[in-house]
Amino acid sequence: MYSFICDYSEGAHPRIMKALSDVSYEQNSGYGNDTHCSKAANLIKKAISREDVDVHFMPMGTITNVTTIASSLRPYEAVLTAKTGHIEVHETGAIEATGHKIISLPQTDGKLMPEVVEECVASFEDEHTSIRKMIYISFPTESGTLYSLKELKALRAICDKNDMYLYVDGARMGNGIMAEGNDVTLKNLSQLADAFYIGATKNGALMGEALVLVNDKLKPNFRFMLKRLGGMTAKGFVLGVQFEELFKDGLYLELADHANKMAQKLAKGIKELGYGFLSFSPTNQIFPIFSNKIIEELQKNYDFYVWEPSDKDHSVVRFVCSWATEEKEVDKLLEIIKGFSKA
Amino acid sequence: MYSFICDYSEGAHPRIMKALSDVSYEQNSGYGNDTHCSKAANLIKKAISREDVDVHFMPMGTITNVTTIASSLRPYEAVLTAKTGHIEVHETGAIEATGHKIISLPQTDGKLMPEVVEECVASFEDEHTSIRKMIYISFPTESGTLYSLKELKALRAICDKNDMYLYVDGARMGNGIMAEGNDVTLKNLSQLADAFYIGATKNGALMGEALVLVNDKLKPNFRFMLKRLGGMTAKGFVLGVQFEELFKDGLYLELADHANKMAQKLAKGIKELGYGFLSFSPTNQIFPIFSNKIIEELQKNYDFYVWEPSDKDHSVVRFVCSWATEEKEVDKLLEIIKGFSKA
Amino acid sequence: MYSFICDYSEGAHPRIMKALSDVSYEQNSGYGNDTHCSKAANLIKKAISREDVDVHFMPMGTITNVTTIASSLRPYEAVLTAKTGHIEVHETGAIEATGHKIISLPQTDGKLMPEVVEECVASFEDEHTSIRKMIYISFPTESGTLYSLKELKALRAICDKNDMYLYVDGARMGNGIMAEGNDVTLKNLSQLADAFYIGATKNGALMGEALVLVNDKLKPNFRFMLKRLGGMTAKGFVLGVQFEELFKDGLYLELADHANKMAQKLAKGIKELGYGFLSFSPTNQIFPIFSNKIIEELQKNYDFYVWEPSDKDHSVVRFVCSWATEEKEVDKLLEIIKGFSKA
Amino acid sequence: MYSFICDYSEGAHPRIMKALSDVSYEQNSGYGNDTHCSKAANLIKKAISREDVDVHFMPMGTITNVTTIASSLRPYEAVLTAKTGHIEVHETGAIEATGHKIISLPQTDGKLMPEVVEECVASFEDEHTSIRKMIYISFPTESGTLYSLKELKALRAICDKNDMYLYVDGARMGNGIMAEGNDVTLKNLSQLADAFYIGATKNGALMGEALVLVNDKLKPNFRFMLKRLGGMTAKGFVLGVQFEELFKDGLYLELADHANKMAQKLAKGIKELGYGFLSFSPTNQIFPIFSNKIIEELQKNYDFYVWEPSDKDHSVVRFVCSWATEEKEVDKLLEIIKGFSKA
Repeated sequence: MYSFICDYSEGAHPRIMKALSDVSYEQNSGYGNDTHCSKAANLIKKAISREDVDVHFMPMGTITNVTTIASSLRPYEAVLTAKTGHIEVHETGAIEATGHKIISLPQTDGKLMPEVVEECVASFEDEHTSIRKMIYISFPTESGTLYSLKELKALRAICDKNDMYLYVDGARMGNGIMAEGNDVTLKNLSQLADAFYIGATKNGALMGEALVLVNDKLKPNFRFMLKRLGGMTAKGFVLGVQFEELFKDGLYLELADHANKMAQKLAKGIKELGYGFLSFSPTNQIFPIFSNKIIEELQKNYDFYVWEPSDKDHSVVRFVCSWATEEKEVDKLLEIIKGFSKA
Repeated sequence: MYSFICDYSEGAHPRIMKALSDVSYEQNSGYGNDTHCSKAANLIKKAISREDVDVHFMPMGTITNVTTIASSLRPYEAVLTAKTGHIEVHETGAIEATGHKIISLPQTDGKLMPEVVEECVASFEDEHTSIRKMIYISFPTESGTLYSLKELKALRAICDKNDMYLYVDGARMGNGIMAEGNDVTLKNLSQLADAFYIGATKNGALMGEALVLVNDKLKPNFRFMLKRLGGMTAKGFVLGVQFEELFKDGLYLELADHANKMAQKLAKGIKELGYGFLSFSPTNQIFPIFSNKIIEELQKNYDFYVWEPSDKDHSVVRFVCSWATEEKEVDKLLEIIKGFSKA
Repeated sequence: MYSFICDYSEGAHPRIMKALSDVSYEQNSGYGNDTHCSKAANLIKKAISREDVDVHFMPMGTITNVTTIASSLRPYEAVLTAKTGHIEVHETGAIEATGHKIISLPQTDGKLMPEVVEECVASFEDEHTSIRKMIYISFPTESGTLYSLKELKALRAICDKNDMYLYVDGARMGNGIMAEGNDVTLKNLSQLADAFYIGATKNGALMGEALVLVNDKLKPNFRFMLKRLGGMTAKGFVLGVQFEELFKDGLYLELADHANKMAQKLAKGIKELGYGFLSFSPTNQIFPIFSNKIIEELQKNYDFYVWEPSDKDHSVVRFVCSWATEEKEVDKLLEIIKGFSKA
Repeated sequence: MYSFICDYSEGAHPRIMKALSDVSYEQNSGYGNDTHCSKAANLIKKAISREDVDVHFMPMGTITNVTTIASSLRPYEAVLTAKTGHIEVHETGAIEATGHKIISLPQTDGKLMPEVVEECVASFEDEHTSIRKMIYISFPTESGTLYSLKELKALRAICDKNDMYLYVDGARMGNGIMAEGNDVTLKNLSQLADAFYIGATKNGALMGEALVLVNDKLKPNFRFMLKRLGGMTAKGFVLGVQFEELFKDGLYLELADHANKMAQKLAKGIKELGYGFLSFSPTNQIFPIFSNKIIEELQKNYDFYVWEPSDKDHSVVRFVCSWATEEKEVDKLLEIIKGFSKA
């Protein structure tokens, strides 16, 4: 049984394991106040071409979203998201747990379109309605799609006009940056977003996300929120060491590139066999449509999500590749699908 | 500069690093639904001599406390703690962030005495007062002291009488269990507590705490709370692998024992030199009292906490030893203190 | 300047003022534990033909919604509402302030259709998604429309099938019950809803809502939530006295009937003049469509809401009548509109 | 059965009832945006000799405390109170329900002494501890005692030095101001407090508290918090009308003065009979100590609180007088006590 179910099935890349082993007996300051976190932060500042930011290392994605959003907003301020956004669909009310309203809006290819945001902003009345204060998007989105630079700039313009924040969830940031056709850089993000995070749990680390606070207003007392919401890590250096390794010579993007290539090879092969897709995703998640009979057969040897029904007899499935996906497994899966297709 | 500042300065024990490296390319189910977590849970059940419990692996201590307490209580129910309890003093309102009241009570040697709890329970009136529903204690306490079996049974009796829960924070559980003079076993805890956790972040792991839910009422839907409060770990197996290694042949207690021995050797040496202590701690934290002049000298070569003033010219300091503390460093520190003492 | 802007512009009906004045020097128990609240609760039980319910008097609508929803749900449970629901649109995140997620769904005539609810229930996955636990509807809705008995029974059936609660916001309950064509009785509500409230602030009282808890599961410790969320009234008898007066001989329904009749007379007159309406509302709120020019003229002498644009040159307005609306003012307004129409 | 149990047993003063009746058919803007609220706010500004404040009318005391505290603090900021403070003891965790920590401190005569506050402020460390941001006191306190002007100035000085807020709960403000020996004026409060409220529920109104926000930092967006936490009143003018009447010619202080005089007459009489008191309270609450036998006898004809045991055979009781307490009832009670005393 081989798994294409997600990109957090495997552990950490051997280089990361080595880096962590190397510091086993080294004494470091607690709670992220150590030299590894400090070096990793500097490497990230270099990668995003911007020095005047705060970088915080956090263990997991949900708590990164929660802490950033709760720290940025006053209690009566709301965050806007596409209906399919992770914070709306798959965090079990974690944002609301901090007292904040999510306003969920129609999506296009998993994305929040500027005109939809504008309409929501216009619907604000007075103290009987929540202040529309933050736009939450994912890069890439839950469906593996990407915002173009132009789309990001349009969202930024709305934020500027309405005194709002733009926050980018980058759980799979590397996969977005390295995707074919992508025109957004980390530098762009550091210019356009008020805050964003660079995820490593899904890209080769044991666990860890690097939050970048760009807007000065979001910086003060962030560590108090981090502690209060449970995300502060006693051995913060464990996160720092991993990001240091990932960013010191490009390993982060290299691993994401591998995952993308494996997924795109799979997509190309499936497409050539004549199958359709739910959406065009250039990243490490792909969404082909198969007959339920084929899906049943595939499930005998593979783990993957059946995403949603397509019609009576067909369903969308999701295949995800990771930093550790072996090319021979991709080839093997393609062969098997080819076999079904001939039948 | 050698550090006695805490027991989370070093990384993970080499055996843990090896166990983690061994699974780098293994594919595991996400979110703790993997075989390593399952095996580790079984090992823990064996260690506590009780099968009918739920074990959840969580990344950090604060979020373990928060999730357990918030999951156990209805909104109008409060948790009782000693004034010096971790949740009262050092979690920046993390419990209150979930909407629950902490009632903080006078302490004796860092402990909550039964009569103090009884008085608090008696002060409940009606819907104008919070229901006293849970007792929170640490084993060992923040000052390194231990509840005796008799004291634990007295707290249990209060819980039974008043329909309350007893929750034990075991961030340093191993150090408590292995302490000289301790008469409490893990089996006792699994009989007396409604919930408790066995901490590994401070005892040889990269990070990880094992929460044991004993009372059936606390079990349903716990994973929903775990997700909602941000403590669910995508690569849950990273925690499972570590606990598997720690509990498969006694490594957990062995590491705690080492930390205790180092601290007690230090305590004994300091005592022999005629210094007093804030409290008697048989665990891996000790609290000697030095003149401020000596403290100033020690700070040139050592990291440690200056805990609180003792009198005008003296202060209490805290020295903590860990699984990684080297005996030669303990000896060296003793020599240095001896040097000051002669002067 | 006469106002058709809402049904809380005027104070209380003279009979209520007299009842309150009569008890000025009477000594009553605090916090709703008085004989007036007790008598009023009995009168309400009679009006809804059900004895085995708990009745709580609360000062205002938002806090009634908040307390009921927060008291009914565990933290990871969500409430479903139409996108246009009051709790979603006009309570500034008050539900989320208690940590609960609102899942907002497409509406039809301001109502939540059974199939929409079923689809939402089906989208539940596991601990990564909020449990769909409660359906929130208003009777009448924000647009003045009414659920039919058949529609309510369909929602009830979904609740029964999925272990969910049905909660009915009755801020304008009287107007719904007395509306022409309505086939839902208070008795029906007490059989179909798990909880509902009967609003009086918008129907002749100074302030006050009567919450009816039908489902036994929702009853325990409700007063603790009431106190904790700030809705407990020291002089609870002030609410009890008002409901006693409203329900002792039918005043409540009589006042609602008047408001409905005034609004329907206005609607009929406007319709006869050939104007269209946003929706068909048989209650005390009506939504005619006028040219912006006419609206501008009307605003010189009348207060009312301009609801939303209809087309480039026309807008929907809202006229609301209350227990105190004078028929001669309705006639006068109709005359004025007739005047514009001739022009 | 006559009641000395509290000062919210009776309804509203006849002048207030008349004022409310006078506006029954008057049309007013909703949510406090009406001329009565505006006039009442101006009268209060005059009474406190300060124009540059915001006045908000709220229905009840708990929600006033909750909204003010939650609105003033960032999530990781705590409020300090005496252990006996209302928010700590008698609000069922209402402050914590908004996510904020209460730090409860030792009290002296129900009051928070400057040195106790200073010690608490000094115990702040870093992001592992809540920021000490607000001091909460009551004037008068729960035990009827009063802060002197000097004591208030000392608390103010601590606030100035440490960037903290001083908030004064004035549920019984009138009784404090009018107490014999009191040297604090409303003007003093408007100079020394960052926020305070003037309570009317316990002083002649049906319900209503007037919150005064002095510090400019606390003013923006307060109405959003008011709505979000459920305290916004649709018929806000009902509160405005009452405060207008109470403050237009001194009725507020007159009623408080009456309550004080009745209580002090009772206290004087009891004292002359040789009984002791728990504390010296110059306000409308008094705390005499009787034998349990006498208490039992009194309970046959009177309602009052048995506050706490004094010794094996004696208890402290609380008698409260209100704006409506009749002097003849005070005399009668004194006679009865005198009767017991002779026996």
